[in-house]
Amino acid sequence: MTDAAVQIREVGLRDGLQMVRTILASEQKLAWCARMVDAGVRDIEVTSFVPPTIVPQFADAVEVAAGALAIDGLHAAALVPNLKGAQRAFEVGLRKVHYVLSASNEHNMKNVRRSTAESVEDFARIVAARDDTAGGVVLGAGVATAFGCTIAGEVDERIVLGLVETLIEAGAGEITIADTVGYANPAQVYALLRQVMSLAGDVPVACHFHDTRGLGLANVMAALDAGVRAFDASLGGLGGCPFAPNATGNINTEDTVFMLEAQGMNTGIDIGELLAIRESVSAWLPGEPFTGAIARAGLPKTFARAEAVAA
Amino acid sequence: MTDAAVQIREVGLRDGLQMVRTILASEQKLAWCARMVDAGVRDIEVTSFVPPTIVPQFADAVEVAAGALAIDGLHAAALVPNLKGAQRAFEVGLRKVHYVLSASNEHNMKNVRRSTAESVEDFARIVAARDDTAGGVVLGAGVATAFGCTIAGEVDERIVLGLVETLIEAGAGEITIADTVGYANPAQVYALLRQVMSLAGDVPVACHFHDTRGLGLANVMAALDAGVRAFDASLGGLGGCPFAPNATGNINTEDTVFMLEAQGMNTGIDIGELLAIRESVSAWLPGEPFTGAIARAGLPKTFARAEAVAA
Repeated sequence: MTDAAVQIREVGLRDGLQMVRTILASEQKLAWCARMVDAGVRDIEVTSFVPPTIVPQFADAVEVAAGALAIDGLHAAALVPNLKGAQRAFEVGLRKVHYVLSASNEHNMKNVRRSTAESVEDFARIVAARDDTAGGVVLGAGVATAFGCTIAGEVDERIVLGLVETLIEAGAGEITIADTVGYANPAQVYALLRQVMSLAGDVPVACHFHDTRGLGLANVMAALDAGVRAFDASLGGLGGCPFAPNATGNINTEDTVFMLEAQGMNTGIDIGELLAIRESVSAWLPGEPFTGAIARAGLPKTFARAEAVAA
Repeated sequence: MTDAAVQIREVGLRDGLQMVRTILASEQKLAWCARMVDAGVRDIEVTSFVPPTIVPQFADAVEVAAGALAIDGLHAAALVPNLKGAQRAFEVGLRKVHYVLSASNEHNMKNVRRSTAESVEDFARIVAARDDTAGGVVLGAGVATAFGCTIAGEVDERIVLGLVETLIEAGAGEITIADTVGYANPAQVYALLRQVMSLAGDVPVACHFHDTRGLGLANVMAALDAGVRAFDASLGGLGGCPFAPNATGNINTEDTVFMLEAQGMNTGIDIGELLAIRESVSAWLPGEPFTGAIARAGLPKTFARAEAVAA
């Protein structure tokens, strides 16, 4: 990966779909995945192995994961909330599994009904299960509410850094720092991510930003300055957190790719194709809020040239 | 001004109101100004001296400018499209007058029906009139479409830099670099503004960004990195350019102030009061699009503490 290459990881099928009212058919989810791959998005969080009683949208997690594994060129990942979910993900053959805990103990209690410390122990059990039965599977660990929490307010940087260290020692093959509730600002992102990058060493670091308070893309710029080269984003900005009031809105995939490509960075993604997929998906999800400046205003006349110069 | 002090210049009464259907009463405009000053916004572009046949909203330019001059603590400015408008602004006693031309010749023709070169000559005539009749009045010069144009496409950096040099030599006491159509990206902003800052020397430089393609606040961060400490913004994101399709949307004052204050920078502005003014103004302008993430999602729980630490 050259310095100008940036990885975009689509989370619309997971973070996005967990918030919508319409349950998509597995075939629709897989068509969405396949078209994203054609558009150049190779990293997709395709589903979540939560109990279907909690999020009915993901009752087809096994089918979607298996179908995604059959799509050429797709690096499919899934979220798992606990050991049981991880075992299901390993069984279906996924090569990448994400586990998330909250730096805010209060948020963790609300989200998964256990303390952050208990979630750390849970992650260690997932690592052990991976070592026993699914060698080679990459376990990503996400630290949610890393920039503040709607319940607890302030989250001390040292708690986040301590968790990053603990999770890497426990076996995390990747770290994601998440602004779950849209509290982060660019100065805070730069300061925290510089330290996370230095702690993480060779372990890749990604960021997961929400655009709740309009700073999502400014925060991406700050994380880029700190050396981060991987970002979660959601087609049409779908998504949020059911326990964080008003925290709707992952950063928008189309707008993020536009910002990066306009500056000569390389995501490998075709925005025109993203916009076409967005149209199909939004037709499947009537009444859901799709955000996005590029979908509304179109690409600048100057954009094609910026891409040509960068190529 | 310390390094952490950033000047926000409200343009909602000018750039915003020129786009709306409802004509506000002069008393409403002046009440808006007075409340902004109470909220800590001391720099306001209060009106535009265009012919009322072109923009009926500004038929009361003289009354509004005179009323604004009577508001304690307000540094009132006005836009002037030509010598005649400048003379009216000088007569009413304004201490600051803005003139704008476009780096894109095509955009300038469409906007003011003369070439950019003719607009430069026009500016020189305004400077001469100021020297004759209004000594001490600061003449700000804005370079519009500095990052690209919806008509011409690409705008060469060298044209912008040449105009900055020419306008300062001609007597500009301040330079504003404007992304009139929302084409700018952070890397472009940083690269151009570094050069503009270096050319401008002691002449203050401001930026005027639109959020058309979602990059408005990221562009503010890039301009801050380049050393810029003054930004135009519009309450509720009102505004745009009548000749630039889809170019609605100045960066939002509330969101901009939030971004800066959350990072410990000092604008002197109270966001809570801005939100209250926004409610009144939006009630006066039914059906107009008011944007803004903070108005929708509220301030983070962590925000009061960030302000307290910075104070």
